[in-house]
Amino acid sequence: MTFEPSLLDLDVRPNDLDSLGHVNNAVALEYLEAGRWGWMDQHGLRRSATVVPVVTRIEAQYRREIRPQRVTVRTRLELDEGSGLEGSVYKVQFFQEILTKDRSETAIMAQVDVAFIDATSRSLTSLQDFLASSQLVQA
Amino acid sequence: MTFEPSLLDLDVRPNDLDSLGHVNNAVALEYLEAGRWGWMDQHGLRRSATVVPVVTRIEAQYRREIRPQRVTVRTRLELDEGSGLEGSVYKVQFFQEILTKDRSETAIMAQVDVAFIDATSRSLTSLQDFLASSQLVQA
Amino acid sequence: MTFEPSLLDLDVRPNDLDSLGHVNNAVALEYLEAGRWGWMDQHGLRRSATVVPVVTRIEAQYRREIRPQRVTVRTRLELDEGSGLEGSVYKVQFFQEILTKDRSETAIMAQVDVAFIDATSRSLTSLQDFLASSQLVQA
Amino acid sequence: MTFEPSLLDLDVRPNDLDSLGHVNNAVALEYLEAGRWGWMDQHGLRRSATVVPVVTRIEAQYRREIRPQRVTVRTRLELDEGSGLEGSVYKVQFFQEILTKDRSETAIMAQVDVAFIDATSRSLTSLQDFLASSQLVQA
Repeated sequence: MTFEPSLLDLDVRPNDLDSLGHVNNAVALEYLEAGRWGWMDQHGLRRSATVVPVVTRIEAQYRREIRPQRVTVRTRLELDEGSGLEGSVYKVQFFQEILTKDRSETAIMAQVDVAFIDATSRSLTSLQDFLASSQLVQA
Repeated sequence: MTFEPSLLDLDVRPNDLDSLGHVNNAVALEYLEAGRWGWMDQHGLRRSATVVPVVTRIEAQYRREIRPQRVTVRTRLELDEGSGLEGSVYKVQFFQEILTKDRSETAIMAQVDVAFIDATSRSLTSLQDFLASSQLVQA
Repeated sequence: MTFEPSLLDLDVRPNDLDSLGHVNNAVALEYLEAGRWGWMDQHGLRRSATVVPVVTRIEAQYRREIRPQRVTVRTRLELDEGSGLEGSVYKVQFFQEILTKDRSETAIMAQVDVAFIDATSRSLTSLQDFLASSQLVQA
Repeated sequence: MTFEPSLLDLDVRPNDLDSLGHVNNAVALEYLEAGRWGWMDQHGLRRSATVVPVVTRIEAQYRREIRPQRVTVRTRLELDEGSGLEGSVYKVQFFQEILTKDRSETAIMAQVDVAFIDATSRSLTSLQDFLASSQLVQA
């Protein structure tokens, strides 16, 4: 099972800027979230009411300021080597980049850990449960 | 030279919540930024037009969901052991926590790296230059 | 049946500011929403899953810029004269103000029209249904 | 002197949604602001450091909920009939719409009053001064 990386274009909005005229560091996380939704769309995954992905950790490196322009969010899912999808996977890691200048420069790099919560029991569940509940169309 | 940790209380606003009714992971970074401004206030540091602090890296661990309530942002500056402030310091690290339930639980822990940019030359400058330009009142 | 006006204090956050260092006009609407939640709290009204208040119109006058400070949102419900609550009320109007400088100046005045939607049928319902579903404690 | 209406496409981002999964009423104002910047771009107007447009009043009618999708902001400048641009114009009004479903439905209609402030003197100035300072390329 492989997931291709996704590319999502989005335009910086005036309200994304801080008092210096750059995209604020918190807003960049909104771009990353949009990127992960785009990744789900690309893989035919719908928002599920029963299993909810929850961000547990974010590490973001802000390498270049982002000014008003079109940017691209590149999103890639990283599965642990050994694990594959044989056993239950309880955490996945997304590698994401925010690209500027026609995708030629990397402004921000991030690793985002995501776990899965069963909405009813409020307990941890697996990637496999998430995929099942999201009515996986392609794989 | 020592900086005491600061504590900033703030109330979750309705717009901070995502579709699950929890504070969104990007919004938590807004709380952290408010915490760093509060830290500057507590140490008599004003926003300077000549030297600008810039976030270069954030690592945040989301340990508990945050629901509508009053939260507290605890902000502590970490200076490298050896360095002190003898030589020029080009990067500082803030350790921040978002506390919930009357400061009894830690919902989010973060390390935030900050560098300093000279607004005119656009080049890196030091913590010492920042402190001087921010008209340090207390120390 | 009378509802007392409510007063909610909140602190401007760094991310609320636009590139001029003032609270952005869109963010002011977030303050107003926080004010309406505060009004509900004051009157013992809980968020209901069955009847949802929906904003249908906002008229806001921006009279003074808001800089970083503590502000107060004053929220008052206006019921049509004749109507009282004898017949079903399908729309209410909130009069809201954002006060600055220790509540001595009015920075923003707004009228916010709110209707009520039955979450299941997706059709309009009445204020009375909303109050009932919100488990009105005081009146 | 005539200004053509502008059309700006933008995509709803996950963080734009409230707990009901709709675009929040405050976020809609961010879309309108993006629309006005797009209108300026279309007419060759740059952000000026000397004359700053300031929103003085917004009236918005929320007619339909907006779910995640691509939307279009239509922005039209309304100049008072008699005035033309013969005398100094101190306030302009934008008529804006947020269109959904491939521009076939109007979700939100708004009138936005804008005045112009001289950044140095902090006093009101005219549209003509704004246009001059914004280095009008087309007209």
